[in-house]
Amino acid sequence: MPKTRSEMKKIEHIGIAVKDLDVANATYQAVLGSENYKTETVESEGVRTSFFKIGDSKIELLAATNPDSPIAKFIDKRGEGIHHLAFAVDDIRAEIARLENEGFKMINAEPKKGADNKLIAFMHPKSVNGVLVELCQERAPITNSSDS
Amino acid sequence: MPKTRSEMKKIEHIGIAVKDLDVANATYQAVLGSENYKTETVESEGVRTSFFKIGDSKIELLAATNPDSPIAKFIDKRGEGIHHLAFAVDDIRAEIARLENEGFKMINAEPKKGADNKLIAFMHPKSVNGVLVELCQERAPITNSSDS
Repeated sequence: MPKTRSEMKKIEHIGIAVKDLDVANATYQAVLGSENYKTETVESEGVRTSFFKIGDSKIELLAATNPDSPIAKFIDKRGEGIHHLAFAVDDIRAEIARLENEGFKMINAEPKKGADNKLIAFMHPKSVNGVLVELCQERAPITNSSDS
Repeated sequence: MPKTRSEMKKIEHIGIAVKDLDVANATYQAVLGSENYKTETVESEGVRTSFFKIGDSKIELLAATNPDSPIAKFIDKRGEGIHHLAFAVDDIRAEIARLENEGFKMINAEPKKGADNKLIAFMHPKSVNGVLVELCQERAPITNSSDS
């Protein structure tokens, strides 16, 4: 029986850490020649996000909502810039299992809820040449339940 | 007459600075679940590059060929990691003119030859939230001339 594979499908988005989301929105609107289509706060991660479409991928601007946010710490240490690289996967649990089997270290061995209605999991940057790689799986469409 | 526009079309590639190209090739082959399809040296930039396809985009691994290479200096300063974000454009000169008109500062106001048969130009990261943005225009197919 062939081994189950669930490779990375595409660049889902690039996450960029910014100090001021409104200023950065104006900057990226001018760079990309298109407007952002969504702003979303993820309180559990301490971030406010803004999304731009670009081809088959997205740019996700990330601003901290509090000083303990990972984005605030990233900017304190390195300044504004690219924070992570996210790949779309069809089956995030299968992909985590595949990567762990290949010897990679996950920050999140269990997927968690992220922005943009996704299940997400980060790989440890030390095992991927200093790149914070995120896996993203589209969740089922949101219904009118309390789980939104 | 409508203003001529030539916005960013898609994420053409993500450039990742690595210390050892062979080691990084093995890592990214395992992460992406696919093999690199091209290795190319750009002597003028002091880099050896390796390309992976991912959806409609590419991952470009970059290793220095000498200690004065921009990639060597980047790694000395920040360690391995994402080096630049490249967008595909149809008309790089029109796009440079548009961006300068928007007030952005270009590192290359004139496009130059890059890897992968492209004309390229970098924007200054200070004007784009710390992100080194590259514009990429596909060049005409290479013929059997000396210009290869």
